[in-house]
Amino acid sequence: MGPDFTPFMREAIALAERGRWYAAPNPTVGAVLVRDGEVAARGWHTGYGKPHAEVECLRDAASKGVDPAHCTLVVTLEPCNHHGKTPPCSHAIVEAGITRVVVGLADPNPVASGGAEYLRAHGVTVDMGVCEQECHDLVADFLTWKLTDLPYVILKLASTLDGRIATRSGHSQWISGAEARAAVHELRARIGEAGGAVLVGGTTLYTDDPQLTARVAPLPRRQPMAVVATRHVPHHDALPRIFRERPGQCVVWTDSTGAGTEAADALRTSGVCIMALPLTPSGRLDLRAGLTRLRADHGVEHVLCEGGGKLALSLLEAGLVGEFHLHMAPKIIGDAEAALLFDGRAPLHMDEALRLRMTGIERRGDDCIMILRPGKG
Amino acid sequence: MGPDFTPFMREAIALAERGRWYAAPNPTVGAVLVRDGEVAARGWHTGYGKPHAEVECLRDAASKGVDPAHCTLVVTLEPCNHHGKTPPCSHAIVEAGITRVVVGLADPNPVASGGAEYLRAHGVTVDMGVCEQECHDLVADFLTWKLTDLPYVILKLASTLDGRIATRSGHSQWISGAEARAAVHELRARIGEAGGAVLVGGTTLYTDDPQLTARVAPLPRRQPMAVVATRHVPHHDALPRIFRERPGQCVVWTDSTGAGTEAADALRTSGVCIMALPLTPSGRLDLRAGLTRLRADHGVEHVLCEGGGKLALSLLEAGLVGEFHLHMAPKIIGDAEAALLFDGRAPLHMDEALRLRMTGIERRGDDCIMILRPGKG
Repeated sequence: MGPDFTPFMREAIALAERGRWYAAPNPTVGAVLVRDGEVAARGWHTGYGKPHAEVECLRDAASKGVDPAHCTLVVTLEPCNHHGKTPPCSHAIVEAGITRVVVGLADPNPVASGGAEYLRAHGVTVDMGVCEQECHDLVADFLTWKLTDLPYVILKLASTLDGRIATRSGHSQWISGAEARAAVHELRARIGEAGGAVLVGGTTLYTDDPQLTARVAPLPRRQPMAVVATRHVPHHDALPRIFRERPGQCVVWTDSTGAGTEAADALRTSGVCIMALPLTPSGRLDLRAGLTRLRADHGVEHVLCEGGGKLALSLLEAGLVGEFHLHMAPKIIGDAEAALLFDGRAPLHMDEALRLRMTGIERRGDDCIMILRPGKG
Repeated sequence: MGPDFTPFMREAIALAERGRWYAAPNPTVGAVLVRDGEVAARGWHTGYGKPHAEVECLRDAASKGVDPAHCTLVVTLEPCNHHGKTPPCSHAIVEAGITRVVVGLADPNPVASGGAEYLRAHGVTVDMGVCEQECHDLVADFLTWKLTDLPYVILKLASTLDGRIATRSGHSQWISGAEARAAVHELRARIGEAGGAVLVGGTTLYTDDPQLTARVAPLPRRQPMAVVATRHVPHHDALPRIFRERPGQCVVWTDSTGAGTEAADALRTSGVCIMALPLTPSGRLDLRAGLTRLRADHGVEHVLCEGGGKLALSLLEAGLVGEFHLHMAPKIIGDAEAALLFDGRAPLHMDEALRLRMTGIERRGDDCIMILRPGKG
């Protein structure tokens, strides 16, 4: 058995995370050069069109006088083998005299893959699959973009310990504390800068009348689009604020009936985009179709869904959620009539519960934020 | 402003935790000697009747050739000032030539307190209240024992992300994974060894028919008592297993009607202890009275309540819970009819929610365990 490269891969993953939101739509990738059991150089993909992580790492080595030929390269994603905006990393690795490469995840992108094969053909030892699941999670957004026509969806909900998102009267301000709410504004700002959208269901829209903007400094240069999934297109006499304040940034997902109403016409006139979505076999709005159109028509690559519970569960059940940020406040409502985090299923056996993987937990002020991803633990 | 002793107090707290379950009914206490900004010696209270943390720390210093006179003593609880099973720590500190002591929590025990006063009278500088809340939480059990006639109650519940403890049909095996369940068996073993009890409500008893024993190695020398709060004393024709398997370790909390039934008489004959509890003004079993009797009549100092939701909420609302371990599984039931984590309240405004403090989170297998304590964050 060779040395354990897990801790080095973890460091490469942490480096890769620094490039999140900047690398898109490229993957976030991190790399380290390891010499004598220690990290000798570091690199990550810092931005779209910038050098890849492996090249950044080789540059770091050069600036430190480290000879890569005496190092093992540990990289989260299989080195590319094609001429894109930059020359192939596989070539740079061979030219640098590196004889061993440890890879987290094989590149699933047929255009760029073949890096490992090229390296092996040039005498480099290649180990694949170290921390594969974490490396997969690291590029879940990129995989969505490459392998589907969907945007990457982050679901964010705030709940009490007993799974409630509001009291029985609909009061929800606030479930979570100031720090956790600031994290949401930060996320909205990222999404806005990236040309993405915030999505809510009709109940949330009509109950909370939210702004769906980032309002904590630093403010983004661009606010996220506001998308509402509702069969009840609002009438101009009682228009939620997003339609009054920034109609040109609003999208309504509704059915063909809703799209044919006078209310819809009035919204269209004010600049709102009305999308008539097909219905699923169970008679609900086809969210997949809505997401696909958001990406195709509006270039939306990131969607942040902020509830409510019905929309959230529909997205989760349809396999459309990339990651789920559950903000949990140390509070108890303790009322069977209070608004539910999720509703609409009726399993009898625990094996029928929807299962996720918990991939992270962090404290934020009085609350905690759990990061959950699709797939069994 | 003097140096920041917070990191040293945190280390003292971590040391103190090593003595948990062994020190009882003494407090868990930790101490470090700090010289030139580094920890030079360590001590903690390792067991009832053994030397106090300060003395252990002085012994560690002696064994390492460290002169305490050149150190600051950082200790989680105010040094004692009385002759109990050991001589006063306050005297030992002065004799060791220590000139500065940093204390986490003032000793609320009138018999042992006065340590800080003694130290100051002998020229020692004493700083009080560093990490006071954490040091308070560290001895929450001890404070319960000293200041009340109640046992220390740990509430443990397992829930899905959406606050469900079973499906609509009552199926709950299992909410949490094997690792989190092993943590429960470990806790039951500790409670059993300490002469404590496991407490459940009637619904849990009749739905799950649980054993309420520690069944994961290492097995305890003594299993916890089994206490059931129910107004429906079970009939001998349909006896839950705890009454069949170990009646002599069982206690039933019921009302005077239940205690007067033939079923109760039959249980008494088999060795079960039937406690007729008074009712609260709202007509529920007076849990405080039950807990007080458990301690008075059976010497129970630790109670682990494992649900269900109604009993749990009653205990929380009555301020009887010392700590709440919420095992959260990354699963969603998503059914309004599924069994609730908590029920019985009806707040309209979020400010009416019951608030706790989240003092710890740890991953256990696929699940996470949140540690919550009374009081606002």
